[in-house]
Amino acid sequence: MNDSILVVNAGSSSIKFKLYRIDGADLAPLLGGGMSGIGGTPLLTVKDGRGAVLEERRFTPGDVPDASAAQHHLEDWFAHHRGAESIVAVGHRVVHGGPDFAEPVLVDDAVLRRLESFIPLAPLHQLGNLDPIRVLRQRRPDLPQVACFDTAFHRGHPELSDRFALPRFLHDEGVRRYGFHGLSYEYVAGRLRDLAPETAQGRVVVAHLGSGASLCALKGGRSQETTMSFTALDGVPMGTRCGALDPGVVLHLIEHKGMSPAEVGHMLYHESGLLGLSGLSNDVRTLLASDRPEAAMAVAFFCRRVAQAAASLAVTLGGLDAFVFTAGIGENAPEIRQRIVAELGWAGLILSNDANRSGVARLDAAGSRAQIWIIPTDEERMIARHTLRLLGRAAPGATA
Amino acid sequence: MNDSILVVNAGSSSIKFKLYRIDGADLAPLLGGGMSGIGGTPLLTVKDGRGAVLEERRFTPGDVPDASAAQHHLEDWFAHHRGAESIVAVGHRVVHGGPDFAEPVLVDDAVLRRLESFIPLAPLHQLGNLDPIRVLRQRRPDLPQVACFDTAFHRGHPELSDRFALPRFLHDEGVRRYGFHGLSYEYVAGRLRDLAPETAQGRVVVAHLGSGASLCALKGGRSQETTMSFTALDGVPMGTRCGALDPGVVLHLIEHKGMSPAEVGHMLYHESGLLGLSGLSNDVRTLLASDRPEAAMAVAFFCRRVAQAAASLAVTLGGLDAFVFTAGIGENAPEIRQRIVAELGWAGLILSNDANRSGVARLDAAGSRAQIWIIPTDEERMIARHTLRLLGRAAPGATA
Repeated sequence: MNDSILVVNAGSSSIKFKLYRIDGADLAPLLGGGMSGIGGTPLLTVKDGRGAVLEERRFTPGDVPDASAAQHHLEDWFAHHRGAESIVAVGHRVVHGGPDFAEPVLVDDAVLRRLESFIPLAPLHQLGNLDPIRVLRQRRPDLPQVACFDTAFHRGHPELSDRFALPRFLHDEGVRRYGFHGLSYEYVAGRLRDLAPETAQGRVVVAHLGSGASLCALKGGRSQETTMSFTALDGVPMGTRCGALDPGVVLHLIEHKGMSPAEVGHMLYHESGLLGLSGLSNDVRTLLASDRPEAAMAVAFFCRRVAQAAASLAVTLGGLDAFVFTAGIGENAPEIRQRIVAELGWAGLILSNDANRSGVARLDAAGSRAQIWIIPTDEERMIARHTLRLLGRAAPGATA
Repeated sequence: MNDSILVVNAGSSSIKFKLYRIDGADLAPLLGGGMSGIGGTPLLTVKDGRGAVLEERRFTPGDVPDASAAQHHLEDWFAHHRGAESIVAVGHRVVHGGPDFAEPVLVDDAVLRRLESFIPLAPLHQLGNLDPIRVLRQRRPDLPQVACFDTAFHRGHPELSDRFALPRFLHDEGVRRYGFHGLSYEYVAGRLRDLAPETAQGRVVVAHLGSGASLCALKGGRSQETTMSFTALDGVPMGTRCGALDPGVVLHLIEHKGMSPAEVGHMLYHESGLLGLSGLSNDVRTLLASDRPEAAMAVAFFCRRVAQAAASLAVTLGGLDAFVFTAGIGENAPEIRQRIVAELGWAGLILSNDANRSGVARLDAAGSRAQIWIIPTDEERMIARHTLRLLGRAAPGATA
C-alpha cells in the first residue's frame, strides 16, 4: 500500500479530513469527509476520491462532545477500515501562528505550548485546531504532525501593512495585522505561477470570496498586504461577519447600549455581513435569486466593498497586473464577478462576459489594463504539500 | 453700526468665535478669538480682523468651569466692548445632526431637545456645542441662533455609503455612517465651483487633512461617501486618533487585556494615530523634521492610508476628475501632498513639483489624469453664510 498523508481541518463544531496517496509524481485524493455537528447531532461522513459516499454514521450527542472526541472516532474509523499504518504524516490547518511562525512547522511539545499561547488571539478557532493534534500525539506518538497556519503566508509583510495606528506597546504585545486565508493565497499564487509565470511576478490582487472573505495583494508571489487583520472580522463584509467597522461602534454598543463584549462579538461574527444587511440570508445565491430590495442592497454592498478593497490594495502594490477570483463565491458566482469588475472599470479592468459566464480561467477582455482570472483554491492540497516537505520528502508535483 | 453675525465653535475645553460684519456684498471678519483652557487655566483672547491682539485676559480655573461659563464671559466682553446689539444672529458649529438634519436649522426648544438626544452619538463634543446655545437663549432670548452640523452635508448619501454590514435594527436605531467635516467639505465644494465650474460637476475627492482628518467623495458638488463614519475615529489615521481599526481589536483589549471601554476610547482618541505610531508627536511638522525611523514610518503610514482611502472613494465615484487638499496639513505640507499623490501615480495622477512647492491652487502636471488642487477651507465663513440665509437674508457673496 502506498504511503499517504492525512490532512485535518478542525473547527469548533466540525472536523474535516482528506487523505492523499503519495502516488508517483502526484498527491492523489483517496478519501475525504469528516465529522459535523460536534456537540450537537454528530454525523461521520466518509467519501472516496471521486465523492462517492462510503460511510454515513450518526452518533448521539454525548458520544462526540468536542473536537478531541471527534478525532478519536475518526482514528477508530481509519484503524478499522483503511489501515492507518499507511499514513506517514498528518498536516493540520491551524488558524494562528502568532508573530513567530512564518512557515509550517513540525509539532513537538515546545511548539504545541507556543501554539496554545495564541489561543487568546483566536479563541474560537485555535482550541479546536489543536485538539486533534493532542489526540494524535497520544494515540500515535511517533507519527509526524505538521501545523500549517492561515497567518504564516503574510508574515513577510512590510511594516506599513503589519501595523495599526496604535501605541507601539500593543504591536509588541501582538496586536498586529496578521491576516488569514494564507494557505489559500499561497496555493493560488503557486497556480498562477504555473499558468502565467510572468504575471505571477507582477502586482496581483487575489479575492478569496467564500463564507469568509478577504483580499490579498501579492508582488512576485509574496503577500504584501491583506484585508483581514488582527481577527477574521476585518476587511470586506462576509456571510455573517461585519468586515471593517468603526471602532467607535463597538464602544457605543458596550457603553451606551449595554451589550456585553461577548454579545457584541457574537453579533459581529454571526449576525452581521450579508445576513445582517439583507435580513434574509448569508448566502449570495439566495440573495441573487431574491427580488427583495434588501437582498439587492446586500449584494451591491458586498461588491462595492470588495472593489474598494481591491483599489486600496492596488495602492500598496503601485498598480495592478492581475485580479484573481477564488473560493466559493469567487469561483462560482459569475454575477458577483461581473459586478466587482464593473466597479473597477474606471481603473481599466474589462471583463469578457462570455468568458465570465462560461467560467474559464482567463476572464479579461481585449484592452483590459489588468488580467482577470478564476483560480480554484485548494487549501488541503497546500497543507499536504507542506507536510511532505517537512518530512524531508520533496512534495511531488508541488509548485508552491 | 453695521449688522454682524457671530460664529461660535465650542468644544469641551475651548470656545472659538468669529464676528463678521455684513458689509455690502461681503462678510468681513471683524473680530476673532475665544476662551481656551476651560476647566484648567482659562485664557480669553480677542483679535481684530487682521489678527492684532485686542485683549488677553487670564481667569482663575473656578471662574470658567465649563463651556456655559465661558460663553457668559464672552458675552460680558461683547457687552462691554463692541455693542452686542450689532449682532443680528449667532451661528453655531454643532458636531451631530443625527439622522434628521440634512441642513442647518434655526434653534427653538423642540430643536434643542432633539439635538440633546444626539449626545450619546458624540458624547465629548455635542454637550460642549450646545452649552453656549443655552446660555444665549437665556441672556438674549430674541436673538436668532442657527445650528450648523458637521454631519448634515453627508445626509444625502446613497444607502451603500450610509450603512454598516450590521443587523438593520442598529441602522434604524441610529448606528450609521454619518460622516463629519461636512462644513469644510461644503465650503470647499463651493470654492471649487467658483474656481473650476466644470470640474466641480464631476467626480472629486477632497482630503481634509488636519489634526482630525477625513476624505470625502463628491459628485456634482454633493457628498457621496466619506471616511469618517459613526464616530470621528474611523477612516484615515489622525494626529492622535487611530482611524480604521479591526473591531476585533476593541473586543480583545476589553475581553483579554482587561481594559475598560472608557480606557480603550481614551487610547483610540488621544494616544493613537501619528502619536501612537511614532511614539514622538502628533504633529507632521515634527515628524517630518525628525530623523528617527519611527517618525518616517508614521508619515509613510499616514500617506499610504490617505491614498488608499482616495482610491477606495474613486471606486464609489466610478473614477476621479479632481483631488483636492484642504485643512492644516493639506494646505501647508508640500511633502505630504507629494507623497500622497505619488502613491496614486498608478491611477494616473501627476503632481507638478514646482506648483506643489510654491503652494498655488492648481498642482497637477501636464498629462495628469485628474486635476489636483489646494483649496483652503473656512468652516466659520460657511457657518456665517448659513446663518444669514436662515435669517431670510441672502448670504452676500455666498456661493455655497
